[in-house]
Amino acid sequence: MQDFKFNNPVKILFGKGQIASISEQISPNAKVLMVYGGGSIKQNGVYEQVIAALGDRSVIEFGGVEPNPKLETLTAAIEIARSNSIDFLLAVGGGSVIDATKFIAAATHFQGDPWDILAKREPVASALPLGTVLTLPATGSEMNRFFVITNDTTQEKVGYGSEQVFPQFSVLDPETTFSLPLRQISNGIVDAFTHTVEQYLTYPVHAPLQDRMAESILTTLIEEGPKTLADPADYESRANVMWCASMALNGLIGAGVPQDWATHMIGHELTALYQLDHAQTLAVVLPSLLQVKQDKKKTKLLQYAERVWNITAGDESQRISQAIASTAQFFASVGVATRLSDYRVDQSAIKRVAQKLDKQGATGLGEHQDISPTDVERILTLSA
Amino acid sequence: MQDFKFNNPVKILFGKGQIASISEQISPNAKVLMVYGGGSIKQNGVYEQVIAALGDRSVIEFGGVEPNPKLETLTAAIEIARSNSIDFLLAVGGGSVIDATKFIAAATHFQGDPWDILAKREPVASALPLGTVLTLPATGSEMNRFFVITNDTTQEKVGYGSEQVFPQFSVLDPETTFSLPLRQISNGIVDAFTHTVEQYLTYPVHAPLQDRMAESILTTLIEEGPKTLADPADYESRANVMWCASMALNGLIGAGVPQDWATHMIGHELTALYQLDHAQTLAVVLPSLLQVKQDKKKTKLLQYAERVWNITAGDESQRISQAIASTAQFFASVGVATRLSDYRVDQSAIKRVAQKLDKQGATGLGEHQDISPTDVERILTLSA
Repeated sequence: MQDFKFNNPVKILFGKGQIASISEQISPNAKVLMVYGGGSIKQNGVYEQVIAALGDRSVIEFGGVEPNPKLETLTAAIEIARSNSIDFLLAVGGGSVIDATKFIAAATHFQGDPWDILAKREPVASALPLGTVLTLPATGSEMNRFFVITNDTTQEKVGYGSEQVFPQFSVLDPETTFSLPLRQISNGIVDAFTHTVEQYLTYPVHAPLQDRMAESILTTLIEEGPKTLADPADYESRANVMWCASMALNGLIGAGVPQDWATHMIGHELTALYQLDHAQTLAVVLPSLLQVKQDKKKTKLLQYAERVWNITAGDESQRISQAIASTAQFFASVGVATRLSDYRVDQSAIKRVAQKLDKQGATGLGEHQDISPTDVERILTLSA
Repeated sequence: MQDFKFNNPVKILFGKGQIASISEQISPNAKVLMVYGGGSIKQNGVYEQVIAALGDRSVIEFGGVEPNPKLETLTAAIEIARSNSIDFLLAVGGGSVIDATKFIAAATHFQGDPWDILAKREPVASALPLGTVLTLPATGSEMNRFFVITNDTTQEKVGYGSEQVFPQFSVLDPETTFSLPLRQISNGIVDAFTHTVEQYLTYPVHAPLQDRMAESILTTLIEEGPKTLADPADYESRANVMWCASMALNGLIGAGVPQDWATHMIGHELTALYQLDHAQTLAVVLPSLLQVKQDKKKTKLLQYAERVWNITAGDESQRISQAIASTAQFFASVGVATRLSDYRVDQSAIKRVAQKLDKQGATGLGEHQDISPTDVERILTLSA
């Protein structure tokens, strides 16, 4: 096992009706900026529950955060937080809204151009406190310190992490997700699955508990994902998918093990350039990446084949191929297509993404920092 | 899945040489009370590492905390903390030292008789901040809010939990455990295993991720436990046992599922009355408790048989019996005997323990609160 630091102070409030409990989590005198997205929370009752829980507190609303939240949109929110002396941020939505809120939290206290936090990796010394009401199980942002922001002007999508932006609490009420479009649930399943794989399918470092916990999440997503798509109001399967998504990226399964994240790095470029949903990019990239890197990932791929997919017949190469094919089939079966052509992205994307990563100096991706621009081209060619 | 709150702010610093990093975790101006046990830390180099890390800070030492720490011992430590205006407690040791330190932390700020915290369940409104350097993987106390204290005068052993006594940090350096007597490692394996079972072998509530994470810990202990006993200086197996013990009782596998804890309640009485090691009591009680409660625990016992012990042959009753037998054999195989007679405790203990639990009003134990004094007698009779 590798040495590690693990720290996750996020308080999880899980279950039916838990939105009411945020009243106990936020100071009665707080001036709250409530951040949300396209307004679906006004159709499904979540908005009313949040407003009721906030009670007499002074609340300013900032709606309209888009998927892959944009610097350009959030600049206005930062200005509102500053000019109104906001002292608590409440994110109500999915990963994009939560990521946006973390960025607002960090940027409000930041001296200088907030984009420098991401572009120049400027340290975040302090941030506004924040909490979240999660309405879309997918990114795990509700239980971690990461956020990803898109700069529309430069077509960059950049991630960042800081202990300052851990949510103080996150409400996970599976009922708030019943009205979500199936596409978002499908995306969430693929996102959580890929987060887990990025921390698991690398090389062995004798960390059997982390391995088994990762396999636990993967197996549960394979089992519960299709159930929750078949019956969106099935509380139990939705609850399990929701908890899997948080556990997939709260730091636990990645503690003490190598991590990959090349699929995400390549995927971010596909979103920035072609506006694919985040999870769509993961479904496109991951199976091909596993194929291209199968030699270096061989031991873990064989373990994955056996423990997650029950593949024990055939020689090593056959078992690995079958595990990769099963992964792609699973993504397709939960409704997320795995080829660039499925999204009408033509082959010119291949060189364009590789060049963009090269220009950013983000070459040498993956757990061995050995995925070159040429490898990225090979991966995307397989996904064409 | 049941509704749950999950919160665990303990920062884990895992790996070789991590004791040095406590310097960054404690204020340079802190007046530190360093709490430890019988002095083994002075033989194995841990004491020197801690003193070096504390540097110029004002440090008072309080050694001599015994296994199953006693109120009578800790009263002196509380007085020292108060009269010296101690503002940080550092536990260096195993679960007993950490539990003792949590009690000192709570009691120093407490108005009135500190034993009332445990005996009268008085709320703990505030506590001194604390950190830990773990030297014995077993109880999980380094990553939770629980402590258990023994009152020697009344022969009571009582547990308590408060968010105020979460350690701010815990250092887990597997190398600090190399010099431990094998008996303590054996006990730690049984303790962590039983903690996991207490949160797993109840009844199904459709929480497949929690189930699989619990099975991950059990399987890893079965795999790594014998290895670390065979070669105490095998860093990898010791590291894995250490991380399993923390994960077994940090709140995660118990979030959203029913919990039992009857084995611990009965075991505490055996320790209070007959001075058995904590883990010895668990090894004595657990297999018999599973046997007596097998009807109510049937579904989970069958799952446990299959997933943890690979038992698939035979009818349901045979598979359950075999799983329980495998559990007892595992405890014995790692060096912890499973019968009262192995510890020269005679049959008079059976009624004595049952009566003591009855008098405490602690009857109705277990996840269904249906384990009566008569059941306790049946359980202990099977363990005679």
